[in-house]
Amino acid sequence: MTPNPTTVRETIWLDDRQRLITIDQTRLPFERVPIDLRDAAVCAQAIRDMQVRGAPLIGVVGAFGLAFALSESGSDAALESAYQMLLATRPTAVNLRWALDRVRTRVQGQPPMRRALLAWQEAIAIRQADIVCNRAIGEHAITQLRPLLDRARQSNRPLQLLTHCNAGALATVAYGTALAPMFLLHEQGVDLHVWIDETRPRNQGASLTAWELGQAGIAHTVIADNAGGLLMMQGKVDAAIVGCDRVTANGDVCNKIGTYLKALAARAHQLPFYVACPLSTIDLLLADGAAVPIEERGAREVSHIRGVNADGDVVEVRIVPEGTVCANPAFDITPAALVTALITERGACAAESAAIARLHEGQ
Amino acid sequence: MTPNPTTVRETIWLDDRQRLITIDQTRLPFERVPIDLRDAAVCAQAIRDMQVRGAPLIGVVGAFGLAFALSESGSDAALESAYQMLLATRPTAVNLRWALDRVRTRVQGQPPMRRALLAWQEAIAIRQADIVCNRAIGEHAITQLRPLLDRARQSNRPLQLLTHCNAGALATVAYGTALAPMFLLHEQGVDLHVWIDETRPRNQGASLTAWELGQAGIAHTVIADNAGGLLMMQGKVDAAIVGCDRVTANGDVCNKIGTYLKALAARAHQLPFYVACPLSTIDLLLADGAAVPIEERGAREVSHIRGVNADGDVVEVRIVPEGTVCANPAFDITPAALVTALITERGACAAESAAIARLHEGQ
Repeated sequence: MTPNPTTVRETIWLDDRQRLITIDQTRLPFERVPIDLRDAAVCAQAIRDMQVRGAPLIGVVGAFGLAFALSESGSDAALESAYQMLLATRPTAVNLRWALDRVRTRVQGQPPMRRALLAWQEAIAIRQADIVCNRAIGEHAITQLRPLLDRARQSNRPLQLLTHCNAGALATVAYGTALAPMFLLHEQGVDLHVWIDETRPRNQGASLTAWELGQAGIAHTVIADNAGGLLMMQGKVDAAIVGCDRVTANGDVCNKIGTYLKALAARAHQLPFYVACPLSTIDLLLADGAAVPIEERGAREVSHIRGVNADGDVVEVRIVPEGTVCANPAFDITPAALVTALITERGACAAESAAIARLHEGQ
Repeated sequence: MTPNPTTVRETIWLDDRQRLITIDQTRLPFERVPIDLRDAAVCAQAIRDMQVRGAPLIGVVGAFGLAFALSESGSDAALESAYQMLLATRPTAVNLRWALDRVRTRVQGQPPMRRALLAWQEAIAIRQADIVCNRAIGEHAITQLRPLLDRARQSNRPLQLLTHCNAGALATVAYGTALAPMFLLHEQGVDLHVWIDETRPRNQGASLTAWELGQAGIAHTVIADNAGGLLMMQGKVDAAIVGCDRVTANGDVCNKIGTYLKALAARAHQLPFYVACPLSTIDLLLADGAAVPIEERGAREVSHIRGVNADGDVVEVRIVPEGTVCANPAFDITPAALVTALITERGACAAESAAIARLHEGQ
C-alpha cells in the first residue's frame, strides 16, 4: 500500500494572487473553465446561472459575495442590498440563507470600516468548516468500510464501491460526502475501484463524478443505471454509498431518482448500503419519507441529452420521437429499513428514530 | 369502452403492388423509411446492417430472401448459395437458421421450377405463424391482467403497465410479445397507460417502444430507468411486463440489462411481474440463470448517445469525460422467484421447473 499524493482539488480556492477561483460546472465534464469570482455581482451570477451547484458550495459563494460587497461599502444600506441581491439568486437554497445570515450576523453592530475584513474572515471560516465536515464524514465512512477493506486486501483485489449521482467535491468545497471516503482511501494508497451510475436523466454520475474521480486518479467505470443489479449479483460490488438531499426523522432517505432501486438490489445481495449525510440534511420535522414532496422537473431533461459532437462542440440532441410525453421525478425515497447506516460528520448511526435523535442531540 | 380501430402496423408486409416492404429500424424513431425488399441481396443487407432486428423478424426476412433467390434460379446450386449467403449475415441468430432450414426442407426434392412458389408460400406461412403466436401471447397476458383491469375500471382510471426495452412489433412481424396485450387492449377500447423505461444504454424503450405505442395511439410516458421504483411506491403501476431473450429450465429470465431491478421493485410493492416468452425462448438445456453467459457489448454504447440535433440531423454525442472507462453488460438475470408468470403462446405458467416442463411437453 503506497500512499498517493493528495489529489483532492478544492472546488473554490484562493490562488497565489489572492483571487477567489471556482470552476464553471455548466461546462463540465467537457471543459474545465475557471471563474474569477471578483465581486458580488459575479458571485451572484455564478449562483444564478448554476455555474456553481450543491447546497454547501452555494452557501460559500454567497458568503464571499457578501464580503466583496462590504469591501466596496460597509454601510448598513450596502449590507442589506447585497444580502437581498445574493439571496434572490436561489431563494429556496437553505444553505445560502444560512451562510448569508451567518456573515450578516457577524458584521451587524460592527463599525462599517471593519465589516469587510470580518465578513471575509467569516466566509473563510464557512469554507473551512465544510472541508472539515466532509473529511470527518469520509473518515467515519472508512471506519464502516474497514471489514470490507480487509477482506478485499486479503483477496488481493480492489475494494469495489458503487455510487449514484454526484455527492462529490463539486457540490461542496472539497471531498464531498459520499465521495469523501474514496478520496481519503486513495490518499492512503488503498486499492479501490468505483462503479459510477451514469444517473439519468441529468447524468451527474457520467459527467461530474467520473470527472472528479478521473482528476484524482481513482480507478472508476461508468455504467448505465440499469447495470448495478447484475454487478451486485456477480459479486463485483462490496458496498454502495450515496449522498442524500434529506433524511427524515425515522431514517428514510430522499436522494436522486434511482437510489431506491440500488438499495433494493444491495439488500437482495446482503451488501451494505451507506448514506453519507451531513447533520444539516437530517430534517427532524418530517416524520418519514411519505412526507417528502418529490420535485417533478422538466420533461426536456429526459427527452434531450447534452454531449460533445464530432466537432468538439457541446450540443443537445433529442432521443425520443418528436412530441413524446416524458415524466421526470427527480428524487425517490429509500426506506430506512434498506439503509445500513447514515454516516454524518459526527459518526455513523443506524437509520432509525432513536439513534438519529441521539446523534442530533449531541449537536 | 369504445373499441379503437385496429392500429397495429405490421413490421413486414406485402403492399398493393405485391412488393415486400419493411421499415429501416436504424432510422427510427427519427425517420420512418420503408425498404423495398426486392431481392435476396437486399434481404441479406437489411439483416446484416441491422435495418431489421429481433429474432422472429430476421427469420422472416431470411425466408423471403431464399424465396427471392429461388425465383431467379431453382437449381440446387442456387439454393445452396443463397442459403449460405443469408445465413452468414447474422450467424448466431437461431431463428434465422431455423427459418432458412424450414424453407430449404420444403423445396428440397421438388422440381426446380416449383421451388420459387413453394418457398414463397413457406415464407408467408412463417410470417403468419409469428402473428398468430404473438396474438396468442397477448390474449393469455390479458387473462392474467383481467383482475387488475377490473380494478382499474372500477376506480375509473387507466390500467397502468410498465415495460422495459422493446419487446414490440418491431422485433417481430406484428404485436410483439410484451407489447401484444397492449395493442389488443387498445383495440378493445380499454383505458390504458404505459410507462416506458428508456432502457439505457441503447434506448430501445425511448426510441422503438415509444415510437410503436405512439403510432398505435396508446397513451404512454417515457421515464428514465431510475424512475420505476418510485412510481411503484407511489401506486402508479399496476403491473410490469417485459419480453425476454432466454428462459432457463428453472424459470430464471435473461433479459435486457435493468430488468432485474424492476423485478425487485415490483416484488417490494407486491406488484405482478410478467415475462412474455414464446416457447422458442425457453431453453431447457440450461439449468438456471447462472449458466447464461452475459454478453458484454462495446463501451461506446454507454459513452456516446445518438439523437437529433437542432438542425434535425441524427448525430452521436459523447456524454462522459474523454477517455472514461465504461462497462456495458447487455443482459441481466431475473431469478424465477421474482417472476409472477411466464406468458407463452400456449398459456401462462409459473416460473418453476415442473410447470415449464409440462407446458413444453404439450408442444
